[in-house]
Amino acid sequence: MTCETVAELKRVGTVQTNETQGVYRLRIDRQYRPALQGLSGCTHAMVFWWADRVDPSYRAELVFDLPYAPGVRAGAFACRSEARPNPICVTTAYILGVDEAEGVVDLAWIDAFDGSPIIDIKPYLPMSDRVLSAEYPEWLKGFPASMEEAAEFFADPEKAAMFE
Amino acid sequence: MTCETVAELKRVGTVQTNETQGVYRLRIDRQYRPALQGLSGCTHAMVFWWADRVDPSYRAELVFDLPYAPGVRAGAFACRSEARPNPICVTTAYILGVDEAEGVVDLAWIDAFDGSPIIDIKPYLPMSDRVLSAEYPEWLKGFPASMEEAAEFFADPEKAAMFE
Repeated sequence: MTCETVAELKRVGTVQTNETQGVYRLRIDRQYRPALQGLSGCTHAMVFWWADRVDPSYRAELVFDLPYAPGVRAGAFACRSEARPNPICVTTAYILGVDEAEGVVDLAWIDAFDGSPIIDIKPYLPMSDRVLSAEYPEWLKGFPASMEEAAEFFADPEKAAMFE
Repeated sequence: MTCETVAELKRVGTVQTNETQGVYRLRIDRQYRPALQGLSGCTHAMVFWWADRVDPSYRAELVFDLPYAPGVRAGAFACRSEARPNPICVTTAYILGVDEAEGVVDLAWIDAFDGSPIIDIKPYLPMSDRVLSAEYPEWLKGFPASMEEAAEFFADPEKAAMFE
């Protein structure tokens, strides 16, 4: 441990995805399954996953060309690139169902990779997570105003391709 | 490292707060300051901090009595307790100003402790973070419908005390 190390991060489960079959599933490790109690009463969860496939040398760059905003460079803390000092990703997802005993959470969609380690799950709470007054930075003006609008927007393959 | 360990988490900075003086500041470590480029163009940031003062034995409990919902017990993944397998906390905050050279981000408010390690910062993006259709679990019905409403709600000391 260096002096900059905060802690060792534990895996609490693994993402299982199969786009062809429409499977977006969280598989929670046995010892953490009690922590799912009550999650089925929530409509949306924030899923925290670790982008373990990002090359460490790419992460070290800190500033990136934004593929969806030609000519704009932004720091890791000003964009949602998976390449960041700690490659923590967070995806808010609609919950289809929770099986506490089996440790399974089925989601409508998640952008994690198949096999990504899960490091936390939190319920989406409007009082802390829904910010009505938040605006985009200049280079994202015109992007969807909510997750619901985004679902329609990214159904257009040309728009979706900007984020590949 | 045990087989469950995902990675070592790095500190990218430290939260500095002083409620009496109204100071809610992120101090970014020198080597990560380039990652702040462009953050001043964002109105709100999601600040990821590590609740390092939570007792490990309390974290291990996994299911908790909710102080704001008498009689309800919920798992760590169904509440926002700081006691969780990985004590990652995320707070969405209004950005007052960013000084990239000095590594300072001033916020309107954050619920982190003075000295909490910062592990990530992301811009708040309505297309992925603002969920209009999200509802509360049964035990939180009637709580504020947005961060803006919450600011008024918690200005009432009696309501704020429920979350102490």
